[in-house]
Amino acid sequence: MKPTIAVLGGTGQEGSGLALRWAHAGYPVVIGSRDPARAAAKAAEIDGRLGRASVTGGDNRFAAERGDIVVLTVPYAAHRATLEGVKDALSGKLLVDVTVPLVPPQVARVQLPPEGSAAVAAQRLLGPAVKVVSAFQNVSSHLLEDAAAAVDCDVLVCGDDKDARGIVVELAKAAGLRGIHAGALANSAAAEALTSVLIFINRRYGLKTSGIRITGLPED
Amino acid sequence: MKPTIAVLGGTGQEGSGLALRWAHAGYPVVIGSRDPARAAAKAAEIDGRLGRASVTGGDNRFAAERGDIVVLTVPYAAHRATLEGVKDALSGKLLVDVTVPLVPPQVARVQLPPEGSAAVAAQRLLGPAVKVVSAFQNVSSHLLEDAAAAVDCDVLVCGDDKDARGIVVELAKAAGLRGIHAGALANSAAAEALTSVLIFINRRYGLKTSGIRITGLPED
Repeated sequence: MKPTIAVLGGTGQEGSGLALRWAHAGYPVVIGSRDPARAAAKAAEIDGRLGRASVTGGDNRFAAERGDIVVLTVPYAAHRATLEGVKDALSGKLLVDVTVPLVPPQVARVQLPPEGSAAVAAQRLLGPAVKVVSAFQNVSSHLLEDAAAAVDCDVLVCGDDKDARGIVVELAKAAGLRGIHAGALANSAAAEALTSVLIFINRRYGLKTSGIRITGLPED
Repeated sequence: MKPTIAVLGGTGQEGSGLALRWAHAGYPVVIGSRDPARAAAKAAEIDGRLGRASVTGGDNRFAAERGDIVVLTVPYAAHRATLEGVKDALSGKLLVDVTVPLVPPQVARVQLPPEGSAAVAAQRLLGPAVKVVSAFQNVSSHLLEDAAAAVDCDVLVCGDDKDARGIVVELAKAAGLRGIHAGALANSAAAEALTSVLIFINRRYGLKTSGIRITGLPED
């Protein structure tokens, strides 16, 4: 039986795209949002698109309690408050942090937090009872909208626990993406910083969906 | 007439690979090293391989004085001291910083400096009389050894001066690489951090030459 995946901030573009793909792959999914009505509506929308009943929705706490794996896709401004609000519900679980520390208005400029990365800040806030792994920061939400479309972007998976990283590499695969072991949680700084670079490249070259590939790996 | 390119630390693997490729492309090149005899030997070696006389060598100061464009490829431990030793020779010039802030023994772990990146630290040290652009941090030196071989890796080019960035994008092209405008000098944090990720990936997957590609760009 597949683990239940909770997606906090799952009504946003990145979160709902991931939720759609995991539901498509057969995982039970719980959408979380500050607004439980919006979460329920998004869950119904995904179920309607897929023609099945595998997605539920509620507030972020509702979702965090029900998820075996909890994925965080809120804007950076809500990162700390969201984690503080669900901290005790995450104990013993795996948190997949998708947060990118963008600081408006200069979102195309790398501005990493004092902890080095949002993911390291999350791990410090949550303590050792939660295994934090970071991933998916570089995947344009536009590329996730079609549940089965191929995505020309790799997922750098960073975390201090190798087995937890492996689970997230599998989750990337389930979402139709190539996940790559990218080292310690501190290495999340690279993935988080890259998102500002990709935003810059999108503007500079008139694109919407630039991404990254790691080269030199053998074909899967 | 092409500008003269000085490569400080040009007896190292990354520096000598770039020097070889720029000499191959017809640029006058000056190799700099702490040891002028080693620099002269490397210059002679490259001239011998290419069958022409376009590379000279001397100490880092000799090279910095003669270069129209100065490329810095020293190990991070020598970054500050090298810059301090050639600072006045760089005035009015473009410095291309290739330095990656690796902190042994944990070189596969991102450990960015307090300034956010080595390139920003260089700019602060040199002041506004020098235009610092960062590039080439992610290109495995193994891929540069053959002057004309195709390289499956992009070059993220970061700098606060758009025209200076454009010059470095052209230098990448001259070296057989695709250079991409990647934003402000602060964005060098992404490229510098990525190198530790690539070192991790090389170890984890048994590779020597992993690299990155930006996806979604139109073909050149």
